[in-house]
Amino acid sequence: MSRNLSVAVIGAGRMGVDHIQRLARRTHGAEVSAVVDIDPARAAAAAAGVPGAAALTDIRAALEDPRTDAVLIATPGFLHEDALHAALARDIPILCEKPLTPDSVSAWRVLQAEEKLGRKRIQVGFMRRYDAEYAHLAELIRSGELGELLMLHHQHRNPATPPGFSNEMLINDSVVHEFDAVRFFSAEEITSVRVRTGKTTRNAPAGMNDPQQVLMETTSGVLADVEIYVNAQYGYEVGTQAVFEQGVVRIGNHAGPYLSARGRWGGTVLPGFAERFSAAYDREIQSWVDAALQGDIGGPSAWDGYAAAACCEAGVEAQKTGRTVAVELHEKPLLYQS
Amino acid sequence: MSRNLSVAVIGAGRMGVDHIQRLARRTHGAEVSAVVDIDPARAAAAAAGVPGAAALTDIRAALEDPRTDAVLIATPGFLHEDALHAALARDIPILCEKPLTPDSVSAWRVLQAEEKLGRKRIQVGFMRRYDAEYAHLAELIRSGELGELLMLHHQHRNPATPPGFSNEMLINDSVVHEFDAVRFFSAEEITSVRVRTGKTTRNAPAGMNDPQQVLMETTSGVLADVEIYVNAQYGYEVGTQAVFEQGVVRIGNHAGPYLSARGRWGGTVLPGFAERFSAAYDREIQSWVDAALQGDIGGPSAWDGYAAAACCEAGVEAQKTGRTVAVELHEKPLLYQS
Amino acid sequence: MSRNLSVAVIGAGRMGVDHIQRLARRTHGAEVSAVVDIDPARAAAAAAGVPGAAALTDIRAALEDPRTDAVLIATPGFLHEDALHAALARDIPILCEKPLTPDSVSAWRVLQAEEKLGRKRIQVGFMRRYDAEYAHLAELIRSGELGELLMLHHQHRNPATPPGFSNEMLINDSVVHEFDAVRFFSAEEITSVRVRTGKTTRNAPAGMNDPQQVLMETTSGVLADVEIYVNAQYGYEVGTQAVFEQGVVRIGNHAGPYLSARGRWGGTVLPGFAERFSAAYDREIQSWVDAALQGDIGGPSAWDGYAAAACCEAGVEAQKTGRTVAVELHEKPLLYQS
Amino acid sequence: MSRNLSVAVIGAGRMGVDHIQRLARRTHGAEVSAVVDIDPARAAAAAAGVPGAAALTDIRAALEDPRTDAVLIATPGFLHEDALHAALARDIPILCEKPLTPDSVSAWRVLQAEEKLGRKRIQVGFMRRYDAEYAHLAELIRSGELGELLMLHHQHRNPATPPGFSNEMLINDSVVHEFDAVRFFSAEEITSVRVRTGKTTRNAPAGMNDPQQVLMETTSGVLADVEIYVNAQYGYEVGTQAVFEQGVVRIGNHAGPYLSARGRWGGTVLPGFAERFSAAYDREIQSWVDAALQGDIGGPSAWDGYAAAACCEAGVEAQKTGRTVAVELHEKPLLYQS
Repeated sequence: MSRNLSVAVIGAGRMGVDHIQRLARRTHGAEVSAVVDIDPARAAAAAAGVPGAAALTDIRAALEDPRTDAVLIATPGFLHEDALHAALARDIPILCEKPLTPDSVSAWRVLQAEEKLGRKRIQVGFMRRYDAEYAHLAELIRSGELGELLMLHHQHRNPATPPGFSNEMLINDSVVHEFDAVRFFSAEEITSVRVRTGKTTRNAPAGMNDPQQVLMETTSGVLADVEIYVNAQYGYEVGTQAVFEQGVVRIGNHAGPYLSARGRWGGTVLPGFAERFSAAYDREIQSWVDAALQGDIGGPSAWDGYAAAACCEAGVEAQKTGRTVAVELHEKPLLYQS
Repeated sequence: MSRNLSVAVIGAGRMGVDHIQRLARRTHGAEVSAVVDIDPARAAAAAAGVPGAAALTDIRAALEDPRTDAVLIATPGFLHEDALHAALARDIPILCEKPLTPDSVSAWRVLQAEEKLGRKRIQVGFMRRYDAEYAHLAELIRSGELGELLMLHHQHRNPATPPGFSNEMLINDSVVHEFDAVRFFSAEEITSVRVRTGKTTRNAPAGMNDPQQVLMETTSGVLADVEIYVNAQYGYEVGTQAVFEQGVVRIGNHAGPYLSARGRWGGTVLPGFAERFSAAYDREIQSWVDAALQGDIGGPSAWDGYAAAACCEAGVEAQKTGRTVAVELHEKPLLYQS
Repeated sequence: MSRNLSVAVIGAGRMGVDHIQRLARRTHGAEVSAVVDIDPARAAAAAAGVPGAAALTDIRAALEDPRTDAVLIATPGFLHEDALHAALARDIPILCEKPLTPDSVSAWRVLQAEEKLGRKRIQVGFMRRYDAEYAHLAELIRSGELGELLMLHHQHRNPATPPGFSNEMLINDSVVHEFDAVRFFSAEEITSVRVRTGKTTRNAPAGMNDPQQVLMETTSGVLADVEIYVNAQYGYEVGTQAVFEQGVVRIGNHAGPYLSARGRWGGTVLPGFAERFSAAYDREIQSWVDAALQGDIGGPSAWDGYAAAACCEAGVEAQKTGRTVAVELHEKPLLYQS
Repeated sequence: MSRNLSVAVIGAGRMGVDHIQRLARRTHGAEVSAVVDIDPARAAAAAAGVPGAAALTDIRAALEDPRTDAVLIATPGFLHEDALHAALARDIPILCEKPLTPDSVSAWRVLQAEEKLGRKRIQVGFMRRYDAEYAHLAELIRSGELGELLMLHHQHRNPATPPGFSNEMLINDSVVHEFDAVRFFSAEEITSVRVRTGKTTRNAPAGMNDPQQVLMETTSGVLADVEIYVNAQYGYEVGTQAVFEQGVVRIGNHAGPYLSARGRWGGTVLPGFAERFSAAYDREIQSWVDAALQGDIGGPSAWDGYAAAACCEAGVEAQKTGRTVAVELHEKPLLYQS
């Protein structure tokens, strides 16, 4: 009776497969009409068991299919720009996994293409904004209940890095989430970035500094810091401490069952981001589908993707030089001002 | 492309409306084809804004509609038996909110009617089994990792009772969840019930004892106790402490953001069961829909509903007499033995 | 310059040695003048390294020494009565480790002997009253801030029992602390006791039921329960949940450093009562010494010791019979009414 | 029988009075023989009710008294140097509240004077080292159980500042504790300091930046940061998160009774350092007295006081300039190398 949103999922890697399952099994009003991957075997494997999902190797085939209502882009970041321009040309709702694009110049091109459409079509996959605790903290900040926000302390820890992970990726793939979080919480732009490196764990690959500390400042002077530690061994942990004029709020606390055994009490540390943010991803996608069925788009915008790209560029330079690097942004187009 | 399950929701009270929204907005593969309530205005209000949902006053109209794939029963308990027999006659998947029926005799009739079909058609709405922590604890018990389960301590607190709430309802509407939880965790039947009453809060309505303590024992001698406190004022809290040979597990711990302000640190107590078990309800319904689309049924069975009704009867008698009351059950039919 | 209290410590077992160290090293204004143990080697070992402490085998020698200002009795319970009468004859301050005496008849004799002196001389070693959290909870109850106290749930877990530990000792040595805690919190007498036994851990010695649940009721109808579990393996844990008209208070929560490692977060469970109540013992003894130097006595009285003995007798009978057993007490003498 | 240590307490301000009570009531083997304050009324008030304590206005009178066994200095920091030289001339055990002296030049003079005595006589009042959790964390670091220490995150929050509190005092009076903590935990010297200021709470006095973030680095490259927030309103909180190669440890977590009432659960935030570190102060003083009675001295040394003074100087310069400032230290004399 009711009409489902037919989504073409571009990219059948880990995130793509995760989103396919989410759309095909847990999201109301959605179905996967096509899975696109340059590797036909991968596309076929991801589409298997998903009723009605075609396995394709070319995004254009998916976009030409009139049944395609919306596009979810989950390819590696360097392939995003092409996919985004192609999908924008179809003028349909897009969910683009972060990063929008890997650099601020290409991100700005995408943003200009969207601007030409005269309305927002792109939501960027900063899923943490859909985490219940992130949303709660953002609301608390907006409410002014505890006065002004003054500082933000973040920890971001992963158990281990995949082969080939580099210092730059630590900024572009990991800290990018905190760049967005700081922008989301403060509702301001980040004006400068500095990176501190020191003693490095012997569990990091050669040439990587781990952990690192990233220091940021926002327009009004909110000081933020991030401990990014990608070979922390013990599990995945993401936490924020927000300091206000009238108090302090901590999110990302340990929860779940407490087990007391063998002289220890406590709980389980989650193994990775997928488990930690599973409900946030569900909410993100449901909310995107709900809006798309209404002809709308919401959530983090192409501007948020562009600003995050600019922060990452500054972060990588700061990492290389040890200096405080200013974040330079174009003026914000009218389309993104509300 | 993919086929949605068309669900007729019977009963448009608080739980019915909640399930309608869940099916119509958050459950993959489901749609609400009919809302049935003897009050036509209530049916219409609940169906409004749900595309394709007819507002009806007679369950038979819904059942006769060939588009009806499944039935969700959310009327008051005393109306369940009729609805169940009618739906069983259609031989379609049924999700029946607890209680199955208000007494063990009628529950046994329902169970026999289902047995005649030769396969399970009824899932009973003991949603706590779908709570992540309940599931985790049940798994831990099954695993034997901490040895045998020895004791279960439960707290079940509500902020306040609606007008007309009685001592009997405290057993039938509230403790019924712990009867199921003890049966679920121990994977055994409850053999006896005893109820202790003592000092009563001045916030309870006249004639009600509140809090009360319900003591149970299972087949193998697991001792369980429940503090049931339905005018606890401060919020809704449900917790369990499971005692094993090698350790102890606590579920239902406080979680969420920690706020430090005005000399206090801590978090928010949830206001009610809907907030506490929101994700469990979602999982319960999604899982029922997923199974129904496959022609299956799972989750708590009619036997579980029947056994809970028998426990409630023993509980009410124990409450009235102060004595330890044995729980008497029919022999378990083969259909329910796996 | 200032005068120290010279304490004769009777009994050089575990508790005696602990108190000797406490008096000789951590208590202001105290010194140990004598250590008495029927085993001369044990007395000598305990007195070694304590300047000025004589090692004796006879309490009378200690009491005859005019330098003896006060007596701390830490012998096994069955030896308390004699020591108490001898020390009362000297009319000096006494700290008697629990139990006052092993049965209520002998406890009543001691109480009558004290009464004849016309003033209190005996403090009984219910050290939990000196624990910061116990004191805090008692204060909260007295304040009426959360309304009336309605229920008390206790857990009392030990890692393992020494050889020869019996069902009776589980009441007399372990639950005796909760008998006192319930009396302390409620500021009422316990009127009845019931004991539930069920599934037993395979870690308990043959013939012991473990865990057990002890149910009590106070004069005004406060319902209390205790899970006593003396072979809990994982550590020592003592906790209380107090249920009020306006809220709930939990003491004995896990605290201390949180360690996250190897996929788990959490802390250490204390190994035993000595570690858990170390600060409470220190406060108890300092407070007894401070009062003694002023010619006073405070803390749990001989009446508290007598009442606890009566509860233990009822508890053991309840354990044996499975019945609810009333606690019978003499009328409270005037001396103990304030 | 046993000999008490007669302590002259210099300074009868808040800390002095606190220590007088501690020595006179809670410390085994100690007594206060003299209270010295230039204000005779203050000296008399502090000595009142302390048996045997003379009220004096001149430290020399106290030092000339042959009964004086040891000196505790609790005057304002700018008066420490004179008192220290006078007490060193008597060659008796000294407990000097932090700071040793207000600058590294005078601290070095004190250290050289002590060195001439050929043995340590000064313990500096960095009481946090005696906090159970600080000690536990230090032990864990020394054990290598979690691999190398990599980072230290500190929060240090006070409810409000007294009149006249300045940016410099925020370093010298508050962050000095973290300078010592970082040196204590890492067992290394701090090599550089940087201070970040940003958005300031409207609760700070005019001209003060609050909160501030202090960044340090140690010899081996451990990165440490401190949020110092002295007008945090909500209470006193001090916490540390230590990041290792194999895990993370948090100390200073919330503890104590949990109260659930009026829709909130949680506990009380302590009002100030005296409550937070009360047990640490007790242990510090007991340990100093115990050592003094043996003719020894332990704990944080004059070198630790000197190094902290040098860190404070670098911190204040860093605060003023916004630059990373190196901490310059003399070579460590042999006396302090063990």
